[in-house]
Amino acid sequence: MHRYRSHSCAALRKDDVGQSVRLSGWAHRIRDHGGLLFIDLRDHYGLTQVVVDPDSPAFAVAETVRGEWVIRIDGEVKARSDETVNAKLPTGAVEVFAREIEVLSPAKELPLPVFGEPEYPEDIRLKYRFLDLRRETLHKNMMRRTQIVSKMRQLMGDAGFFEFQTPILTASSPEGARDFLVPSRLHNGLFYALPQAPQQYKQLIMMSGFDRYFQIAPCFRDEDPRADRFYGEFYQLDVEMSFVEQEDILQAMEPVIRTVFESFADGKPVSQNFRRIPYAESIRKYGTDKPDLRNRIEMQAVTEHFAGSGFKVFANMIANDPAVEIWAIPAKTGGSRAFCDRMNSWAQGEGQPGLGYIFWREEEGRLSGAGPLAKNIGEERTEALRTQLGLEAGDACFFVAGRPDAFAAFAGAARMRVGEELDLVDRDRFELAWIIDFPFYEWQEEEKKVDFAHNPFSMPQGGMEALQSDEPLAIKAFQYDIVCNGFEIASGGIRNHLPETMVKAFEIAGYSKETVEERFGGLYRAFQYGAPPHGGMAAGVDRIVMLLCGAKNLREIAMFPMNQQAHDLLMGAPNEASPAQLRELGLRLAPAAKS
Amino acid sequence: MHRYRSHSCAALRKDDVGQSVRLSGWAHRIRDHGGLLFIDLRDHYGLTQVVVDPDSPAFAVAETVRGEWVIRIDGEVKARSDETVNAKLPTGAVEVFAREIEVLSPAKELPLPVFGEPEYPEDIRLKYRFLDLRRETLHKNMMRRTQIVSKMRQLMGDAGFFEFQTPILTASSPEGARDFLVPSRLHNGLFYALPQAPQQYKQLIMMSGFDRYFQIAPCFRDEDPRADRFYGEFYQLDVEMSFVEQEDILQAMEPVIRTVFESFADGKPVSQNFRRIPYAESIRKYGTDKPDLRNRIEMQAVTEHFAGSGFKVFANMIANDPAVEIWAIPAKTGGSRAFCDRMNSWAQGEGQPGLGYIFWREEEGRLSGAGPLAKNIGEERTEALRTQLGLEAGDACFFVAGRPDAFAAFAGAARMRVGEELDLVDRDRFELAWIIDFPFYEWQEEEKKVDFAHNPFSMPQGGMEALQSDEPLAIKAFQYDIVCNGFEIASGGIRNHLPETMVKAFEIAGYSKETVEERFGGLYRAFQYGAPPHGGMAAGVDRIVMLLCGAKNLREIAMFPMNQQAHDLLMGAPNEASPAQLRELGLRLAPAAKS
Repeated sequence: MHRYRSHSCAALRKDDVGQSVRLSGWAHRIRDHGGLLFIDLRDHYGLTQVVVDPDSPAFAVAETVRGEWVIRIDGEVKARSDETVNAKLPTGAVEVFAREIEVLSPAKELPLPVFGEPEYPEDIRLKYRFLDLRRETLHKNMMRRTQIVSKMRQLMGDAGFFEFQTPILTASSPEGARDFLVPSRLHNGLFYALPQAPQQYKQLIMMSGFDRYFQIAPCFRDEDPRADRFYGEFYQLDVEMSFVEQEDILQAMEPVIRTVFESFADGKPVSQNFRRIPYAESIRKYGTDKPDLRNRIEMQAVTEHFAGSGFKVFANMIANDPAVEIWAIPAKTGGSRAFCDRMNSWAQGEGQPGLGYIFWREEEGRLSGAGPLAKNIGEERTEALRTQLGLEAGDACFFVAGRPDAFAAFAGAARMRVGEELDLVDRDRFELAWIIDFPFYEWQEEEKKVDFAHNPFSMPQGGMEALQSDEPLAIKAFQYDIVCNGFEIASGGIRNHLPETMVKAFEIAGYSKETVEERFGGLYRAFQYGAPPHGGMAAGVDRIVMLLCGAKNLREIAMFPMNQQAHDLLMGAPNEASPAQLRELGLRLAPAAKS
Repeated sequence: MHRYRSHSCAALRKDDVGQSVRLSGWAHRIRDHGGLLFIDLRDHYGLTQVVVDPDSPAFAVAETVRGEWVIRIDGEVKARSDETVNAKLPTGAVEVFAREIEVLSPAKELPLPVFGEPEYPEDIRLKYRFLDLRRETLHKNMMRRTQIVSKMRQLMGDAGFFEFQTPILTASSPEGARDFLVPSRLHNGLFYALPQAPQQYKQLIMMSGFDRYFQIAPCFRDEDPRADRFYGEFYQLDVEMSFVEQEDILQAMEPVIRTVFESFADGKPVSQNFRRIPYAESIRKYGTDKPDLRNRIEMQAVTEHFAGSGFKVFANMIANDPAVEIWAIPAKTGGSRAFCDRMNSWAQGEGQPGLGYIFWREEEGRLSGAGPLAKNIGEERTEALRTQLGLEAGDACFFVAGRPDAFAAFAGAARMRVGEELDLVDRDRFELAWIIDFPFYEWQEEEKKVDFAHNPFSMPQGGMEALQSDEPLAIKAFQYDIVCNGFEIASGGIRNHLPETMVKAFEIAGYSKETVEERFGGLYRAFQYGAPPHGGMAAGVDRIVMLLCGAKNLREIAMFPMNQQAHDLLMGAPNEASPAQLRELGLRLAPAAKS
């Protein structure tokens, strides 16, 4: 017989009754029922109930066993009586009567319970992560994570992509976030950097003649810790293709992402065809480029109904500034003064002056709009609004006014708040969509200049011609995101592979050709030697896993995360370097007077 | 039709004749045959011959095209005449007559040819890696690498292992080599370290209740560059299992490694059952723990034949030191004075006093040993030697003498030299074997103390009892390597999961309990809370790929390697940090007066 086990703790069934078996695992829970000891024995695969009766030679040892001790048990499989069968447990029809118990490894008193799922301070959980990970939810999340990543690899392979590893010790490249630096011992005073993403490398792989690349790629950003992102490292499904247009990437990746979601959605509906929503439309309808489409509310511009109306606040804004718009947030079933006032108070809590509204009710068989706005604009305009928005008695509508770029984010938040309050959000589904046609440039108010809105490596729609003749802020990029339930889960673009166009694009954003050569030297050089048209995307592995685990915190879906203060409490990182190490690296500590 | 291609450059066959097609790719080679232009168009998938005749509207553009320009071609598939069919090319039965050519991206004059496979200075190749990678051999090697890694993943998955990513920003842990440090911006004066291997993490994964882990894991060591290892980062197939003994690991991993080799051996034979060779036997027979078993020569101890013999040099050594042994290196077919003298000169070139030999010849129907040694020890001893070694007329034998630990490495080198010179090494096969029973400790001559021979985390054979009562240098470890053709390709062990045994093992090597707690805190802590018996191994991905690509240099099997001076010439790493970055990290440069 095997030294440790003949079966896993998930294996035994009624058919095994009478067998002599050997199991090993952790003592999950120990109960004393009138002299009989019950030990729930747990391993990676499952749980088996072990019974030790006082006559068993194993009893003396069994009495010493405590929670989380690792033990080996030899015994006989017996059927449970009908009333003690546990239908929830795959092994619940049987129990093992122990004949012999060997303690493989005892455990000190636990700083953290493994049995049950109580809340516990995060720092204790992270310091004793090996105990925390034994808990059922975390164990399940980790297994789901590995299965999701494996599924991604399988689907990418099936689609003709090949995985290549790109360097982790590389050059600093100011792509946006802050780099982690790695001092060079062999070249004192110089530094490697950890890649923020393999962006340049994957493009170089295309320059190198490979056609379809992917990688489950570790990425590194030294950004201040935040609840919804990992400090330090995270993973992305990184993709690049040659000889493609935007449509090819969308066609290639949509089935991959859909299948990943379907495989782990636990039966929840997943969008079969991802809607394609232009950026401008997404902002107008949802107030954001990361819309939660489970919320059926779509905003509409209703400016003309207020222009010249009796509601002077809006009417004057419209008259004084042609850029002003009024947007409506229709609120089906929200038609009560109490609800509308609650929303108004919420808006004030968010720092807004308030949230104007109309609600409709049926009085004496007659449908009428109520609330101060309705009164001010009069019956005809109120009815025109209702008709445009398709609302009925019992519904309401909220209004935001101003320049859309100033109020869109708030309007989007109000849309979500209304949807959640009125239960218009179907939580049990995954609504996936493409956001396309992102603006190539944006206005940087602080520096009073045009800058890249997103990825400077993207191809502007219209190419060189657009760069030469169009208003920069009107130029769109071949750039696209995938959003799911209010989160951006992937982002990509067709790249600008033409060196002259690249230089021109940077010039408009105020960067010289020399800057391009210096900052993106390897890639810019490669563009000079026969560059195929190419594009790709990167999907956030951690975010996707989090959605599919229903986890609320990123630390619930990574094996050994740091805490929010960027400490690895399990291994004790970061820690001090020895004077010899610093000497070898040619460094001296110079603690800053914190500014 | 697709914007760039209707077919890949590997797709067209005789069946496609008459079709109108679109291809995109690189102009691999351009020839002018009496006015007709022939362009070999290359993409990731293959080559297609494009013909442009002077009447074609594409001719004017075609004349401008140079090597490595990226072009799109529209044209008609025609059959080649019988005499111009190229059987070596999958598309060799057809050619495409171009109707239209679009230049997608021109190329400057190439610093490095892509067509053909000439030798070229490595630094140019690395700076223009994107050109180097377009060459056929490198392209093939990269594709083989990705396929090997993918196969490893598939086999590990099939065997019930799950892949988990372990942290890359972690704590410094003195496991042997030098760590790369990453200064912390949020905690000035403290440093993260890149993992030399996920050793502690994979053991912690077992402590966390997972059963079978693997990872294609990036590892980082700041060791001085060497021809046969990567500077900086490398990959290993990292494996760990719970509730196992050594035999379980061997049984689990042998089929994985064998299948990987068989899948990419191009038909070369691969060992079906890996021999298991105890470390001591490997040293005795092959002079090394990384034997090349394609070489059939096995050394034997022949001390008694020289003890008290007329060859006084050996006889006196034996008489004066009981630890002295004489080893024989039998050399089938090496029986000529010329060959024996050549080996003797080689040995002198290696810094040895010489290499004693006997060779056997048939003279007048009589078999006799020749050479000075044979003369000195006489006919009877010479014959006894021949019989023990199973040699015949036309064979030779070389002898090394002294304390085995002093001469084993040279004896191993002589064995290889003899094997290669006599063509006794069958190059076209993969000979895989396990080396087992490594010593747990070794004698550190510099520090005059016992230290760990290999992995301090391994379980000593005999456990605590052996540590308490056996001579330390006689204790073996549950530790094993896989070797292939003279290279160590994997290494592993059963781990010491018992905290007391761990403390005792470190104590013998001169480390206090406090040192253990400080250096391996996370792991040592985990051992206190219910640790399953566990073990694993790590296989060198780069080395395996190199063997299976038949590559001679590691830089031929990685996408973007650094050069031997630890520079990434493509991206320009390492490079300078800005004063602002240094300030944020709380560091000052302190270039050392090089000692």
